[in-house]
Amino acid sequence: MKDSEPDLSLFYSEVPAEASALFTRSHFPGAPIVVGRERMRAGCLQAVVVNSKVSNVATGEQGLEDARRMARLAAHELGISEELVLMSSTGVIGRRLPMDKIEDGLRGMALELADDPWPAARGIMTTDTEPKVLSIDVGSATLTAVGKGSGMIAPNLATMLVYLFTDAKLSVATLKDLLEDATAQSFQCLSVDSDTSTSDTVALLANGRMGPVDERAFRSALNRTCLRMAEWLARDGEGATKLLRVQVEGAATDVEARRVARAVIDSPLIKTMAFGADPNVGRIIMAVGKCVDCRIVPEKLSATLQGVAVVEKGLIASFEEAHVRYLLQGDPVEIAIDLGVGEGNGLGLGCDLTEGYIGENAAYASS
Amino acid sequence: MKDSEPDLSLFYSEVPAEASALFTRSHFPGAPIVVGRERMRAGCLQAVVVNSKVSNVATGEQGLEDARRMARLAAHELGISEELVLMSSTGVIGRRLPMDKIEDGLRGMALELADDPWPAARGIMTTDTEPKVLSIDVGSATLTAVGKGSGMIAPNLATMLVYLFTDAKLSVATLKDLLEDATAQSFQCLSVDSDTSTSDTVALLANGRMGPVDERAFRSALNRTCLRMAEWLARDGEGATKLLRVQVEGAATDVEARRVARAVIDSPLIKTMAFGADPNVGRIIMAVGKCVDCRIVPEKLSATLQGVAVVEKGLIASFEEAHVRYLLQGDPVEIAIDLGVGEGNGLGLGCDLTEGYIGENAAYASS
Repeated sequence: MKDSEPDLSLFYSEVPAEASALFTRSHFPGAPIVVGRERMRAGCLQAVVVNSKVSNVATGEQGLEDARRMARLAAHELGISEELVLMSSTGVIGRRLPMDKIEDGLRGMALELADDPWPAARGIMTTDTEPKVLSIDVGSATLTAVGKGSGMIAPNLATMLVYLFTDAKLSVATLKDLLEDATAQSFQCLSVDSDTSTSDTVALLANGRMGPVDERAFRSALNRTCLRMAEWLARDGEGATKLLRVQVEGAATDVEARRVARAVIDSPLIKTMAFGADPNVGRIIMAVGKCVDCRIVPEKLSATLQGVAVVEKGLIASFEEAHVRYLLQGDPVEIAIDLGVGEGNGLGLGCDLTEGYIGENAAYASS
Repeated sequence: MKDSEPDLSLFYSEVPAEASALFTRSHFPGAPIVVGRERMRAGCLQAVVVNSKVSNVATGEQGLEDARRMARLAAHELGISEELVLMSSTGVIGRRLPMDKIEDGLRGMALELADDPWPAARGIMTTDTEPKVLSIDVGSATLTAVGKGSGMIAPNLATMLVYLFTDAKLSVATLKDLLEDATAQSFQCLSVDSDTSTSDTVALLANGRMGPVDERAFRSALNRTCLRMAEWLARDGEGATKLLRVQVEGAATDVEARRVARAVIDSPLIKTMAFGADPNVGRIIMAVGKCVDCRIVPEKLSATLQGVAVVEKGLIASFEEAHVRYLLQGDPVEIAIDLGVGEGNGLGLGCDLTEGYIGENAAYASS
């Protein structure tokens, strides 16, 4: 990173790592996603190169070539095969990567590699307010996660990039299973503003240097790490002042539980309620009620807000408003919903909606 | 209306009218909706009574009784059968109607009935910034629409109430067909903030006093009236400064076209772009891309913003940014999208997202 405002990061493993990755479902994935999907078929990575400011989305054939060249430049700098490099780009849609700057930036970066992931975490930040790194021991191995939000990119879109690195020895098939499982309980529950990025990437690399680990222990560590990272990304959503955590139980299915949880965390009226710390709990009923395709039986609905029963049997419960108002000033804001119709459950992770979101996204630095 | 801030309105036809109505799809419809659905089976109405401030939602058996009593009081005042009175309530969820105030308010209201619908339109306003009435001639008959937004209710939920009155003679079956058709092209395309009210009601009453009219002419007048009212409600959405109109063509089906249109008008990043007047057109690609369940072929997508081609063949087109920035300062903001994969088309009507929305909904007047 050579700029005062770093915008290029390189992650490197001394030996090739087994790897698995998940990408955005958008119909308009960025060029790095298209190339990355091809590259992940081999299940092996040794480095990840990431730039911010320009997302290399909707750039056509030239964009694909730029993405490949970015990986090639990183591979050359590291002295490894370009097929072992995954790339991510995050930023404004529809602009070409500044290849000269990227080439210049990568030159000599191999000499700056460090064990400390914080500088690289800073390099992939956009409107995040802080670099995001988590690290946890699993037996003799370590699992390290580096992420960026979910704060909107300056000035463009919600983009989530998370890289998970471990020196445990795990097979590609196991990594794929572990990553899908952990992601379903964390990043898939996350929504800052209901908009889907064209660059979302979650990758898990295991270089095996510390040998095998207890798989159950690793799964648990990975799940916890991904959940904490997802909460961190939500809390640092653009303009956000707090995390909004919604747990739905008693749904007809897990899918319906997640749909209801998503409706609640995405509701602007719930989000402004969390921001304003106002126990306008009818909005919970409204948000559940709008899930017209889910099985909802009004008189079976109950809900708590910050642990206080606010909806019982589909009716607003009697609760002490001043007390709930006080509790709502805390972070996170927690809503637990029991639909009472089945065994399905699901989680939603979001954030409040504030004037800060408007300010950051209405202004456009087109330069 | 007896208060300085009117919150009770009464609409009355001198003779019973054929009638049809559409209500919210929420799982938690207000008590007036539950009673109203029963009442509409007969297809005949002579009056509509509407209060604001309290929505009579999630109020259980007592709420149903209150709704019926409100209609009974209005019927008594007018000297008509209570079965001929439709009622609507809009406001905070989970509170009982102040029946004493309603009884007091209705007393003597029959003497205040006037041809002018403006005072009544004012009486159903909540956070709307202006009363909304439209009137149009159809042959010798007249069609008058009275609506309220879609501005959030103070301080609660997006609630849309629209009453359409005509002295043309039309059968219940025809009214139902006409209303569903007109609504599909107008109010069903409307979203201020993706939240669904528990009180939404659209009713069409035809008392027949001017005799039969040309049905095609009436349909056209009704469609135009509903579309204009929907646009008005959108433009006066809470905190909104402008209308956002999105036309999608070339979708696989009409349903998919409407889904894409809805994704675009509900996208906070599109809404803040409209507010900020910034041609950050990659956001259009993002919003279309997130419709993962629709048939989208990236290289077939094209889009215009304020009439200027900004996306061609799935790529950002070359356009004069300063010019589009200038055009974006206008109202409405118009986005036309051609998916290029079929014959489906659909409309979306929304508004921009501003600090005003946050301010109005984070603050809670719990009194």
